[in-house]
Amino acid sequence: MRAEIICIGSELLLGDIADTNTQYLAQRLSALGIDLYYSTSVGDNLERLLDCLRRAIDRSDLVLTTGGLGPTDDDVTRDAIAHLLGETPVVDDILADELQRFFRLRGMEMSTNNLKQATLIPSARPIRNTYGTAPGWWVTDGGHSIVAMPGPPGELRHMWETEVEPHLFDGDSIIQSRTLKLFDISESRVDELLKPLTSSANPTVAVYAKQDGIYVRITTKAASLKAALRAIAPVERQTRRILGAYIWGADDDTQESTVAAELLKRGLTIAVGETITGGSLTAMLSSAAESHIWFRGSLVLPADAARRTSAPALARQVATQFQPDLAIGICGTILPESDPPMGEVTIAILGPGSGTLTTATHRIRRHRLRTIGSYYALHELRGALVHAKNRNSATGYERSIREAT
Amino acid sequence: MRAEIICIGSELLLGDIADTNTQYLAQRLSALGIDLYYSTSVGDNLERLLDCLRRAIDRSDLVLTTGGLGPTDDDVTRDAIAHLLGETPVVDDILADELQRFFRLRGMEMSTNNLKQATLIPSARPIRNTYGTAPGWWVTDGGHSIVAMPGPPGELRHMWETEVEPHLFDGDSIIQSRTLKLFDISESRVDELLKPLTSSANPTVAVYAKQDGIYVRITTKAASLKAALRAIAPVERQTRRILGAYIWGADDDTQESTVAAELLKRGLTIAVGETITGGSLTAMLSSAAESHIWFRGSLVLPADAARRTSAPALARQVATQFQPDLAIGICGTILPESDPPMGEVTIAILGPGSGTLTTATHRIRRHRLRTIGSYYALHELRGALVHAKNRNSATGYERSIREAT
Repeated sequence: MRAEIICIGSELLLGDIADTNTQYLAQRLSALGIDLYYSTSVGDNLERLLDCLRRAIDRSDLVLTTGGLGPTDDDVTRDAIAHLLGETPVVDDILADELQRFFRLRGMEMSTNNLKQATLIPSARPIRNTYGTAPGWWVTDGGHSIVAMPGPPGELRHMWETEVEPHLFDGDSIIQSRTLKLFDISESRVDELLKPLTSSANPTVAVYAKQDGIYVRITTKAASLKAALRAIAPVERQTRRILGAYIWGADDDTQESTVAAELLKRGLTIAVGETITGGSLTAMLSSAAESHIWFRGSLVLPADAARRTSAPALARQVATQFQPDLAIGICGTILPESDPPMGEVTIAILGPGSGTLTTATHRIRRHRLRTIGSYYALHELRGALVHAKNRNSATGYERSIREAT
Repeated sequence: MRAEIICIGSELLLGDIADTNTQYLAQRLSALGIDLYYSTSVGDNLERLLDCLRRAIDRSDLVLTTGGLGPTDDDVTRDAIAHLLGETPVVDDILADELQRFFRLRGMEMSTNNLKQATLIPSARPIRNTYGTAPGWWVTDGGHSIVAMPGPPGELRHMWETEVEPHLFDGDSIIQSRTLKLFDISESRVDELLKPLTSSANPTVAVYAKQDGIYVRITTKAASLKAALRAIAPVERQTRRILGAYIWGADDDTQESTVAAELLKRGLTIAVGETITGGSLTAMLSSAAESHIWFRGSLVLPADAARRTSAPALARQVATQFQPDLAIGICGTILPESDPPMGEVTIAILGPGSGTLTTATHRIRRHRLRTIGSYYALHELRGALVHAKNRNSATGYERSIREAT
C-alpha cells in the first residue's frame, strides 16, 4: 500500500509552528509496513490544496490529511475534498446533535459557523474526535482512500490510534508491534548481528538510533492479537538471545523509568553527585514517576570540580550528606586536542552500607557529554541494581536506617 | 517572490528523524517577506525527486532543497538537478582540493566516493559548507533558482545564514534582522501592544512564541548594512519604549546566558537549591559558558521536600553549604483539583552577605512546571542582579571571600 501525507495550515509555512504530525504518522505507517512516498505541507488555500489532493489521489492508495477542519472560512479541507469528488457537503443531523451536546456539556454557546464541522458528503463517513469539535472524514473513492484528520497533535494521535489504524485493514488483519531498547552498542553493529531477522517480511524487524540508545522494532500483521503475539514472541526471543546483554527496556520504557522501577522494587533509595554533567543526571532521575520515594537528594558541583574531587569521593560525600542506600558520583574531563572533540566520564557507585564500590569510565563526544554521560550513569546503575539485595535482606541497610531515623 | 522547500531523505518518511529544517527555513523566509507556498518531503529516490523538482521549478521562483548531498549512492540530489537541466556533473578541481584538505586536517583518509561531493554542473556555483564535507549548489535557470543545501540542521542553518540569505537579493539589497526576547507576557498581549508596528511593510515586525518567552523580530531590506541598521534602530527603540520591562535579551541570547553575563560582569558567584524543578534550573545554569567561574554548587531535594522546607530556608541552606555571593532557592507544589492542572513555584533569592531576601510566587501549567519554573527563576535572578552591587564594592562579600580562602 502506498501512502502520502498532506499537512494543511498556513501557520506551518510561516514557520509559526513545527509540524510534528508527519514524523508521528510516518513512524506509525512504517511499523505497519505501509510505504510513505511523499509528505507535503500546503497553506489554507482551496486551489493549492485541491492541486495537492488531485496529485495525491492519483499516485497513492491512502492519502492522510491533517488540519483545515476548523469552523472558520480559512478551513478548507472539507470543501477541497468535496470539490475533488464533485459532491456537495450537507449538514448531518446526528453530527450536529453531537456537536451541540459537546458545547452544552461545557456550558458554552455553539456559534452557527460550527455547523460546518457537522457536514458530510455521500462518499465520506465521519470519524469520531473525542478530544475536539472537528470529526474526521474517511472518504473512499474507487480503490483510493482519503482520511482527513484534525491538525492539533493530541486530537490527531488519539483519532489515529483509536479510530483509524485499527480499521486500516478491516476484515483483514491487525497490526501489533514490540520495541526492544538497547544501549552501549552501535546501530551498525545491531544491524549486522540482526541481519537474518531484518530481511524477514513478516514480522518486520527495523533498527533505528535514538538519543537514549538503539531501538529494535518487531512488527507483525496477523488475523488476531493472539496470532500477532505468537508471531512476535520467537523473534523477540531470538533478538534477546543475540543482544540480551544490551537490552535495557521495551516499548514505553525510558532509561530513567527502568532505574526507577528497580529502585522501587528493591525498596532502595539513591543520592547523586555530579560535576561535568551539570545536573542533567539529576534532572533525568527526578523526572521519573514516584521519584520522591527513592530520590534522596543531589549535589551538583562546577564542571571543573573534578580537579579537586573524584567520582568515588563524590559518591562518598553524597552518601554522608543524604544517607541513601546507593550513592552515585559522576565526574569528567574534556580530553585536550581530541578530534572530534571528546570527553571522558567516570562513574562510581557506592553500594548499600558503603559495602561495595564500582567504577567505570567512558569516552563520549564532547557536545553530547552531558546527555550521554547521564545515560551511561543510568546504564551502570542498572548493572549495580541487578547485584544489589533488597533493602530488607541486607545488614548494611540497618545502619543507614538507624542513622536516618 | 514565491519559494518552496523540498526535504530529501528516506529517514524523514520512515519517521526516524523529525524534519526541523522546514520550520527553520519557513521562519527565515517569512521574515524576509518571501511567500512559501509548498514544502514537500520525498525519499532518496531519483525518479520521485525529479518529479518534485520539475513541479517546483514550474510553479516557484526559488526552490530550496535540503539533504541528499552525501557521498553515497542513495544521495541523489545532485543527479536529479543535473537530469532536470540536462547537464552532466564533473569533478571540480578546486572543490576536490578543498575536500582533500578537510580530510587531511582531521587525519582521515578520503574515500573515492567523496569525490561525488566535489562535482558541479555548468549552471551551478558551489556554496561553502564550513561544517561538513558537502558543499551546496546554487543553480540559476532562467528566472528560477534552486539552492541545494545539506540536511544536517547545523550545516544547513550555518550555510543559510552565512552564504545564502545575505545573497538572496544580491546587487539589489541586503537583509538584516534583530530579535528582541521577552518573558512573563503573553503573545497576544505583545501583538496587541505592537499593532502599530506589526502592520508596517519595511521593516517587518513579527511576534512569535518560544519556550523561553516571546520573540519580536524586526527585519528590513535595504541598500546597505548601514541603511538597514538605520531602519531597524527606531523600530527597536519604539519596541523597547512599549515593552522594555519585559525584554531580557536579543538575537542569540538565552535566558541562562544573560544571567551568566551579569554574574561575570559583577564578579559574583551563585549557589542553587531546588525541589520541584528537580535539577532543571541547575542544568540550565551549568550549561552556560564559563559556568565554572560563577557556579558554586547546587543541592537538589525530592519534589515533596517543600513540605519540610521553604524556598528561603533552601536558599539559606545552600548559602551555608557553598558560600556563594547569591543564593537562590526554588520550591513548589501541585495545586490540587485545578483545571487545567496547575502548580505554584516560590523563588527566594538571598542577596550578597545574606543582606537581602526577595521572594516571588508564580502559577504555571503543571506539565511545564519544571521548565517554566526554571525560566521564572532566571527571570527573578536578572531582577536581583540589576540591584546587586559588584563584588568589590560590597562589604558583605569580604566575609565570604575570607571564608572561601
